[in-house]
Order: sequence, then C-alpha cells, then structure tokens
Amino acid sequence: MYSMTNRRLVILTEGRLDVFSAKTAVSVIRYRKEDVVALIDRVNAGKDIESIIGIGKGIPIVSTIAETLHLKPTALLIGIAPPGGMLPAEWRKHITDALINKLHIISGLHCHLDDDPEFCKLAHDHQREIWDVRKPPEDIPLGSGKAKETKTLRILTVGSDCNIGKMVTSIEIANAAKKRGFNACFVATGQTGIMIDGSGIAVDHVISDFISGAAEKLVIDRSHYHLLSIEGQGTIVHPAYSGVTLGLLHGAAPQGLILCHQPTRKTLRHFANFPILPLPYLIDLYEKLAQPVHPCKVIGISLNCFGMTDHDALQEIQKVEKETKLPATDPIKFGVNKFIDGIRPLLP
Amino acid sequence: MYSMTNRRLVILTEGRLDVFSAKTAVSVIRYRKEDVVALIDRVNAGKDIESIIGIGKGIPIVSTIAETLHLKPTALLIGIAPPGGMLPAEWRKHITDALINKLHIISGLHCHLDDDPEFCKLAHDHQREIWDVRKPPEDIPLGSGKAKETKTLRILTVGSDCNIGKMVTSIEIANAAKKRGFNACFVATGQTGIMIDGSGIAVDHVISDFISGAAEKLVIDRSHYHLLSIEGQGTIVHPAYSGVTLGLLHGAAPQGLILCHQPTRKTLRHFANFPILPLPYLIDLYEKLAQPVHPCKVIGISLNCFGMTDHDALQEIQKVEKETKLPATDPIKFGVNKFIDGIRPLLP
Repeated sequence: MYSMTNRRLVILTEGRLDVFSAKTAVSVIRYRKEDVVALIDRVNAGKDIESIIGIGKGIPIVSTIAETLHLKPTALLIGIAPPGGMLPAEWRKHITDALINKLHIISGLHCHLDDDPEFCKLAHDHQREIWDVRKPPEDIPLGSGKAKETKTLRILTVGSDCNIGKMVTSIEIANAAKKRGFNACFVATGQTGIMIDGSGIAVDHVISDFISGAAEKLVIDRSHYHLLSIEGQGTIVHPAYSGVTLGLLHGAAPQGLILCHQPTRKTLRHFANFPILPLPYLIDLYEKLAQPVHPCKVIGISLNCFGMTDHDALQEIQKVEKETKLPATDPIKFGVNKFIDGIRPLLP
Repeated sequence: MYSMTNRRLVILTEGRLDVFSAKTAVSVIRYRKEDVVALIDRVNAGKDIESIIGIGKGIPIVSTIAETLHLKPTALLIGIAPPGGMLPAEWRKHITDALINKLHIISGLHCHLDDDPEFCKLAHDHQREIWDVRKPPEDIPLGSGKAKETKTLRILTVGSDCNIGKMVTSIEIANAAKKRGFNACFVATGQTGIMIDGSGIAVDHVISDFISGAAEKLVIDRSHYHLLSIEGQGTIVHPAYSGVTLGLLHGAAPQGLILCHQPTRKTLRHFANFPILPLPYLIDLYEKLAQPVHPCKVIGISLNCFGMTDHDALQEIQKVEKETKLPATDPIKFGVNKFIDGIRPLLP
C-alpha cells in the first residue's frame, strides 16, 4: 500500500477545476494541502487557484508533468471523479509521463489503471506503484447484520443527493470530536475519503451482494473507537446509486444519521428530471428504512451553503432548524459544534 | 454463449437436495425438466426425487459423473446457491470429472469457475465451455433513470425476504400472460433465472454503482415487449442484500409490484434476529421508495404456501386479501390468473 507520509502530490484536473467537478482535487487540497505541490490543468494553467476554488493558496497550476519536476513530486493523483469513472483519453499522456519520471499514481477511477498493460509495464520498469483506490480488498464478507452489536457510536452521513457534502461533514465531525478529546475515527467509504485518510473501502465498487458486508467490515475493524464518523454515499432516492446508499445504511447499522443537503440545489445533479425531495420526507424515509435492521434517528442537518453569503446561510440554517426541529449548520462556514453537542451524550 | 437447445443436464446438489437449499436445482427441474437427465447427490443417491422435492418424477439420483455417462449428458449444472456463492471443496472432483468426460459446466456461484486454472485448462483441453452465469456483461452503463420512458409494462416482484418465490412468480406471470396471447417476456436478474431462460444479468454480481444501470439495460433491451415480468431480488429491509433490491427497483422503474411472502416464515432466512415485517408496512415502504424515481403500486401478493394444505393455503390467501385489499394467490398451487386480470388493463 502506498505510504501516506511525506507525500508530494501533483493533482490532475485538466480543465475541470471547479468545486463540484473536481471534488477529489478540492477535498485533497482542503484536508491534505501540505501534501500538494502542484496542479496540472492546461485550461487554468498560470491562474490563481484560490480565485477558482476558494482554497489552496500558493499551489501552482501548470500544464505538464515536466513543469512540476523541480518541486520533487512523489505521486500523480487523478483529481476528478467523472460519472462512470472512466479515464478520459487525453489524460493517458500525463500518466505515462508521471510514471517515466518516477511518480507513483493514485487513482479513484472505476477502471483500474493497474490493469492497463502500458501503465502496468511502465510502473514495473520504473519501480513505481499504481494505487487504484477503488479496488476493494479481497476479504469482504457477506453482511451478517452484526455491526449493530459493536459498542461504538456509529454516525453515518446521508444526503438529499450525491456530491453534496457527506464526506466533508463526516471528516469535520471526526476532527471536531478528536479536538474535544473523544476517541473518534473518520471512516472512508469513497475514493476521495480513502485518498485523504489512507484507509477505507469504496463501497460503490464492491460486488453488489457485498455492499453491506463491506460497510460492516469497516465498522467491526474499527469498533475499538468510541465514535465512528462514517462517510455516506449517494441518496436513497437516486435513480442510479440508491442501492449503494441503502446497503451502506443497513451494513453500518448507525445509531444516528446526519442528513446533508444543499439549499440551492433543486434537482439531482446530472438528473434534471428528478427534483430534490423535502427534508421531512427524506428524514421519514431514512428512519423507516433503517428501523427493521437497526433503529436510528436523524440527529442533525448539514447544509452545504456554497455560493451563499454568511447572512443568507444563517437564515437558511434557521429555516431548516424550524422545519425539522433538528440542529443544522454549514460545516465549512460555521463548524460542527452543534452536532458534537448532540453526539456527546450518545457516546459509550 | 452456451446453447440452450438440446441440453442434457446433470445437476449437482451433493447432499443439499431440499426445496430451499437446492433452489437452483429445484427451479431448473420445475421449468426445464425435459433438459435434466440426472442428479448427483451422494446422500440421496438411489432415492425417489419426487418424494424429496415434490417434482422431477423419473430423474435418477446418482453419486458420480461416471454413473450418468450412459445418459449422454452435455453439461454439469451446479444446482445450489450457497450464501457467499463459494465452491465447496468436495465438489471439485465432480467438476473435473465432468470436464474430462466432455461435459460443459454451468455455474451460478460468486466465484468464477473459468478463473480457476485447473478447470480452465481442462475445459480448454477438452474443448468444453464453462458458463459462469453470474459473470456480468462488460457493457453495463451507469443508471440514467430512463427505463421509465419505455412504453412496456414493467411488473417487478419484490419480497418480504430472499428465497421466497420471486423468480417463480415472475416466470409464472410471464408464462400465463403468453398463454393468454400477450407479448410478454420473463426478465431474469439472478443466476437460476438466467439458467432457465438463457439470458439476463445477475444484478447481485455487478459492481454496486451499476445495479440500477444493469436493471435499466435489461428493460431497455426488451422494451419491444408489451409486458416485462421482472424477477426481483432480496428484500428492501435485508441486513445483507437490501442494496441490490433497491437498485433493481429504481433501475427497472416498474409500474406495478407483486409482493412475495411466505406465511409460515417468521424471521429472515439465515438471519434469525430479524423478524419478517407485516405486509402493510412493506407495501408502504416499497411504494414510498419507488415514488420519487417512478411511482408504482403493489398490485398483488404472491404467497409461497409450501408445506401447507390447499385448505390452509386458501384460508391464508383470504386473510391476506382482507388485510391488504389486494389479490393474492399461491402461483404453484393456484396459478396467477388473478394477477393477469389485474395486469391486463395496464398493458400498452
């Protein structure tokens, strides 16, 4: 497994550098900025990264691997997660350049780069590793329903859509809990979370009969922690990804859910025919679905108020708190202390 | 692809020949009896098959491949689907014997037999095929939510548990509809259904991000039919398999559901801590979950009254009809005309 220490990452975004398309890049910069030495993005080369994504001050954007070599990079990280996870053809050259220049490759794409004969040979010749983050471990069991027998407090993020703040919320909860001295752990279930944390299973990439088993394994392997802040996936009402969401909900058997939502989003991302549902409908549905396997409650609403002023965000938070009778916050703008206050009394 | 015509099958059940453990064997005998020349089951060798599983009159049960050769078999079919789908070690000899004697192999196990070097070499040497029924096609797309735009009537079976009669109900509906002259098609989504029908996708064996995409592909590829009778999987409240159930529900976007249930079963099979839920709770949950992607209604209850007298089964059917206000039947005991009557006015 690729080492998480002393990383010097070059991140490939290639023209897709915005907060939503380059979710992986943005999140790695947010939580592992000290590891990132440059971005490769021909369209945005030379521009100021902070003016584009609001974070990352000082990280240069360039066009080629060659321009990053003086920064002594150790790995090229594929920084987007396109629908379907396939590798855009024009990116191949960056990957071969990286391997030739002795960089490791970190990828969260559905297609496994280490199954590619050309990449595989180059990696072998230059003694580099290709870390296909989404490749699941081989020892995932079928679900047994046993995560609920662990003593740890399991808090899972769920959402009104994909790509809406579940990973960020789960990381922020784990970090805030640790700051308060709790024995807490972030549990990554998607490629970006795994790249940030160094461990986890991409539950959207296991054989579908094993989704719950993967979630259960993640919980049981970490059950010595008092608090597991588990990254959710998708949404229960998604025409493409709902199966992953539900398998994760039943496998992880959380006692508490944090429902993530973006107030400005009116339809599912990339699925304009599917409106985002009202929060009370979603709360009821998540709780009803969890109930027969392991009863749990939604204990907070995490709002992604990206693009809103702080004033508007606060108004939205108040509105949602009134509507749902639950604590709400925007983790990036205002932190997650409200959630930690609710979680504290539930700790074992 | 292995040919479905002129098959002469030997089915391996090896001591597990009962109606629930040998679901695959029993179903292939039920719907393809003319294809089956013998069973291999050391524990039951020499016994009368009909007295064990109620069907299959005249099919001999023997102990070895050698004893079947005078029947000129063309293929060995693995007749059970154990939890996890792994190959019991003691079965290897039967498979190697079969290949050496020029039988093809048909398997629905999770582990792919054609990835096994020994089997692979034997198959090559003897020019036989290994058909791993669960291996998905390589061109499954991500879900797009587009199954609902097809004009075909899509009827999906759902259930209160696994292994409760969904496949049988879907086949019976397709067969009864065809008998009445409707342009109908059974859509297999599991290994046994595929073995019976010769086509389909084992949705429990695709990468989990693609469950809905697989279901959608099955529908769109068959949208020239007026009626698709789609085999369901698992149950929405299953601690291990719920993800597959929900992905299938959203991907297939059915207009009508048939809820399958076994009155004598009180807890989930192999999961004694999880009670079977009341039918009204399940009906409500399935409809609420389907609604945001494609609204649908439960239009009938299929009861698996195995082991009950006809008199008791009829009483149960009446009780369920009163409780749910929906037509109920046991497809094996009493046929599915009640369902067809309900489906007919919905046809395009």
